[in-house]
Amino acid sequence: MVTIRFLPHEKEIKVEPGTILLRAAMEAGVHINASCGGEGACGKCRVHIEEGEVEGGGKEKLRPEDWEKGYRLACKSLVNEDLTVLVPVESSVDSAVLNMASTPRKTASIQEMDMEYLKERGLFIPPVEKKHLELTPPTHGDNVCDMTRLINHLRMQENEHGLEVNLSVLRKLPDALRAENFNATLTLARPVRAECGKTRIINVQPGNTSDRNFALAIDIGTTTVYGEVVNCLTGEILAQYGEFNRQISFGEDVITRIMYADKAGGLDKLHQAVIDTINNIIARLIKRSKIDVDDISAVALAGNTTMTQLLLKIKTKYLRLSPYVPTSTLYPPIKAQEIGLNLAPHVTALVYPCISSYVGGDIVSGVMGSGMYLTDETTLFIDIGTNAEIVVGNKDWMMCAACSAGPAFEGGGVEHGMRASKGAIEDFSLDPITFEPMSLTIGNTKPKGICGSGLIIMLASMFEMGLIDNQGKFNRNLETKRIREKDGIWEYVVAWADETQIDRDIVFTEVDIDNLIRAKGAIYSGCHTLLNEVGMDMQSLDRIILAGGFGSYIDLSSAMTIGLLPELDPEKVTFVGNGSLLGARMTVLTNKLRQDVVDVTNKMTNFELSETPSYMDHYMAALFLPHTEMGLFPKLKGRLEARQAWREGKSDS
Amino acid sequence: MVTIRFLPHEKEIKVEPGTILLRAAMEAGVHINASCGGEGACGKCRVHIEEGEVEGGGKEKLRPEDWEKGYRLACKSLVNEDLTVLVPVESSVDSAVLNMASTPRKTASIQEMDMEYLKERGLFIPPVEKKHLELTPPTHGDNVCDMTRLINHLRMQENEHGLEVNLSVLRKLPDALRAENFNATLTLARPVRAECGKTRIINVQPGNTSDRNFALAIDIGTTTVYGEVVNCLTGEILAQYGEFNRQISFGEDVITRIMYADKAGGLDKLHQAVIDTINNIIARLIKRSKIDVDDISAVALAGNTTMTQLLLKIKTKYLRLSPYVPTSTLYPPIKAQEIGLNLAPHVTALVYPCISSYVGGDIVSGVMGSGMYLTDETTLFIDIGTNAEIVVGNKDWMMCAACSAGPAFEGGGVEHGMRASKGAIEDFSLDPITFEPMSLTIGNTKPKGICGSGLIIMLASMFEMGLIDNQGKFNRNLETKRIREKDGIWEYVVAWADETQIDRDIVFTEVDIDNLIRAKGAIYSGCHTLLNEVGMDMQSLDRIILAGGFGSYIDLSSAMTIGLLPELDPEKVTFVGNGSLLGARMTVLTNKLRQDVVDVTNKMTNFELSETPSYMDHYMAALFLPHTEMGLFPKLKGRLEARQAWREGKSDS
Repeated sequence: MVTIRFLPHEKEIKVEPGTILLRAAMEAGVHINASCGGEGACGKCRVHIEEGEVEGGGKEKLRPEDWEKGYRLACKSLVNEDLTVLVPVESSVDSAVLNMASTPRKTASIQEMDMEYLKERGLFIPPVEKKHLELTPPTHGDNVCDMTRLINHLRMQENEHGLEVNLSVLRKLPDALRAENFNATLTLARPVRAECGKTRIINVQPGNTSDRNFALAIDIGTTTVYGEVVNCLTGEILAQYGEFNRQISFGEDVITRIMYADKAGGLDKLHQAVIDTINNIIARLIKRSKIDVDDISAVALAGNTTMTQLLLKIKTKYLRLSPYVPTSTLYPPIKAQEIGLNLAPHVTALVYPCISSYVGGDIVSGVMGSGMYLTDETTLFIDIGTNAEIVVGNKDWMMCAACSAGPAFEGGGVEHGMRASKGAIEDFSLDPITFEPMSLTIGNTKPKGICGSGLIIMLASMFEMGLIDNQGKFNRNLETKRIREKDGIWEYVVAWADETQIDRDIVFTEVDIDNLIRAKGAIYSGCHTLLNEVGMDMQSLDRIILAGGFGSYIDLSSAMTIGLLPELDPEKVTFVGNGSLLGARMTVLTNKLRQDVVDVTNKMTNFELSETPSYMDHYMAALFLPHTEMGLFPKLKGRLEARQAWREGKSDS
Repeated sequence: MVTIRFLPHEKEIKVEPGTILLRAAMEAGVHINASCGGEGACGKCRVHIEEGEVEGGGKEKLRPEDWEKGYRLACKSLVNEDLTVLVPVESSVDSAVLNMASTPRKTASIQEMDMEYLKERGLFIPPVEKKHLELTPPTHGDNVCDMTRLINHLRMQENEHGLEVNLSVLRKLPDALRAENFNATLTLARPVRAECGKTRIINVQPGNTSDRNFALAIDIGTTTVYGEVVNCLTGEILAQYGEFNRQISFGEDVITRIMYADKAGGLDKLHQAVIDTINNIIARLIKRSKIDVDDISAVALAGNTTMTQLLLKIKTKYLRLSPYVPTSTLYPPIKAQEIGLNLAPHVTALVYPCISSYVGGDIVSGVMGSGMYLTDETTLFIDIGTNAEIVVGNKDWMMCAACSAGPAFEGGGVEHGMRASKGAIEDFSLDPITFEPMSLTIGNTKPKGICGSGLIIMLASMFEMGLIDNQGKFNRNLETKRIREKDGIWEYVVAWADETQIDRDIVFTEVDIDNLIRAKGAIYSGCHTLLNEVGMDMQSLDRIILAGGFGSYIDLSSAMTIGLLPELDPEKVTFVGNGSLLGARMTVLTNKLRQDVVDVTNKMTNFELSETPSYMDHYMAALFLPHTEMGLFPKLKGRLEARQAWREGKSDS
């Protein structure tokens, strides 16, 4: 790690070598004007290197004399050694003001179950296990059938009793046993609970293959399907791969897909599309991890209720018709081949249970994978995707709801909103004096739009800097060209047309803000309502778990500033990444999850928020920044008062 | 029934109206010369009707004056009323001699388990059951998933707990429930033992279909496959159908098929051939019984070990390679669709377990269906098909063996042997004075050959009449043209060329006799060996059960005369018909059989006769008519002594 010292802010940050200087400044909470997303186009991010030297620096964009003097473009400079950097600011601004500009970025720390966790607790009970056996070959005096020979050996030598067997094993058995003179390896599938189920022999292979036992974990997202290969002996992830769900060509969101599935042949097509997607992922994973498909012993899959029913080719129509009834919340173990997966005949597909039409297996999987259901702490689990699902509770109780938050945090319903892909503004700060922006895009290209994490930061910093009020309306009296009225709608110009890839001004409008406030209000009030139903409040939360790709990028302080998350020590916020994939992965490593998931599913109370009378009140109260009840956000309240005091002091001077 | 009195024999018999007079004579043990098989060609079977009148009578074959006098051809006369019939015989023959000619035919009486049997014993526990449910439709306040609604209802209203469900049910569930406002019928599959298994919901249908619950029983023979539709509510058989096993085009016997299966693609082809056969049978059965395929809830199948492994597409190679090891003797329940059967996805195929490479599921099925395993009586179960399998034992112990009897009883290795089809001589008697034959063919046509039941009767009557000695050699000194030497082999001419369909003499040779003796010797000594292994002997047998199509036609007294069966009261011999089909049928009516079959399979000791030292001695001793040890056949001994005395008297006179 190298250390960068920013002047005149007197802020220091440690970063990885190779970090772009502009990003390092953003992380440190140092504002540097920059509208071009980090591409070097606008030339605004000129800084002076006081000590040390950067790599690159954008020489071609600078006047030779400035270059000679030690000026560099922060967006084109890579940090490789300790530096001291002077950021040009108005001389009248003191460091107190500078440091009001933005707070250092704080994202949630990663939390997940892993093999260590399982082994420490004696929970490493994989659902599939291999056993190498050396049988005595048959003779005239001992010509019992192959199966009996196997069963007798298992009974006597391995203390395995009451075994069942698959037809596919019988088919392989005669040659598999004889290929290496009755020296062979069995794959055994363990029952969920040893005391009320039978172990099943699902595969047989010649020789000793007991060191090769793998499983797949698959997360079936509406947009993207992810898969990974897990080594069932070590818990190691050998390969990961994701690709767009091929169902996208039949509709972007679940509602469109449910409608398509109801057309003639629609269900078959959607089913086939997701199976094709998964099969392609399986093929890639096998290639990348260089394993034999016959050594894959299990697959666990998780997805939302619609994705799950389409995976299993179950009619989805009634999920969107009132009263929103899924066909089943628990699914039986299914042969992977029965649903068309390109896996060996012995592989059972374990499909995560759902809670309701709109709280699906992806959420249950996240709850299981995060270990939330094992703790005493009252936890808020939140997955913000195309919509938002929330779970609150602990090991004793659990409630969940789907929030009609809409897709604002994925960029939907926002004029220049976009998914988190190249060219999306993902980070942002405002100069507290000039209100000029500092934008960073994914891929450091000219901006095309703004993604979810960018929108949250943008909204938070504008609110905190006083550009917008607690109702999301722009302060009409500020001296900046960037705030303007156009076609009757007030907006802030994030990037001028010539700084963008789209040759139009990228703006952030009051309509956008309104949508974001309604989205965050829906989530916050959903959680509020659930807690209230058990006589608790938001202050009772001990912990927040963020799931989904979005969660890893979210700036926690911004999310608390806008009232998306309750104000909690950021240390108590953890991030499980793709919770759905995590839960699926853990399922192939420990039967403990399969044992517990039925209890968790049965324990979890689903709330149809629209049917819960208090929800609307909580929602209305949450349609402010951060909330009508400012007392819920005491730290923010302190910062706003400080800013107010400074502003009043400034106007006095 | 009408009564026929034969003179001068003074024998009476009651027969069904419509019986052919010649057959009635044969059944009564009255010999009438007849070589043409009953077609009216030879004109030898002229009898005089003393009282009553027959229908037909072969007027065109008789001189008008004879017709007027009341002569009729027995083979062309149908019996419709009580008759007195005079059979022309040599005047010097008295009735004692006449009655020595042949014994009245005695075939085994039918014995099988049926619904009455099951219901009386409280064993009517079908493996599949339908339940009609009227559920409360979902509302906003009660929008649990469809499965939970179902499970809750079953738990509360039907006392059904711990249910499992098939994916295919989940797929049908949403629409099936809503088609008639949550009034639907479930099909439940019961576990083999209620205490250690779960009931599974395998099908759901709209409305009330609980009165339509059917199952299939299938017997997979090497030559012929039979199927039937069973009503699971009543035990009634709604339709039966059989056709040749399409595997025949790849080889007639199991050995040829095993060899074919070992060629590239051979196993797949043989598997497909039998599946195609069964599917065709299923289609016919559905058509004939006018049922809906969705109302077929189960299928039970039984076949020999090779047929079973080919059905399941399991390599058969090791069945014929020493030490003759089957892949498995017990088979797991399998989805009917998994092996390609054209049945609904919910149907489980129950496949009968095998004992060894050459004692298969067809035999186990027969043992189960006959109820042999439930009795105290020491029973010999014998199935004579292409080869012969025998089981001896009772409810406490059971031993079995496959006898290398060869196909002699199916006509194989016999010069004019043939399967039991039209034109086969199936019944036979000898004139004790002239040694002229009385032959009856299947279909009453001119003879083409001799089938198994005919061969046994022929051998028995020739031995008893002294045409052949106890080593199967013809008496060279008898005054009949029918016994002759040709190309160094002695033979009896059963029908002269002009009396046959084949324009050649139909003969019965010493080579044929030798093959038959070796076949019967193999079976008898097999049983003898098994009994000896538990310190018992043939006299210990309380009962004989004959299985297979052959068993229903066999003349018991002839079978005992040649030493194929031990000499037992014919009343103690019963016949179960197609035992394999019977066992399969019973399986779909009572789980009792599925419970017991595993015990029976485990209990049954298989003997490889070729590996059992005492077998060869027993076999050698059985290569005589009826056996070296004449004391084993006391009744026959008596008859032979009487004949000897008469003959000596005759030669004295």
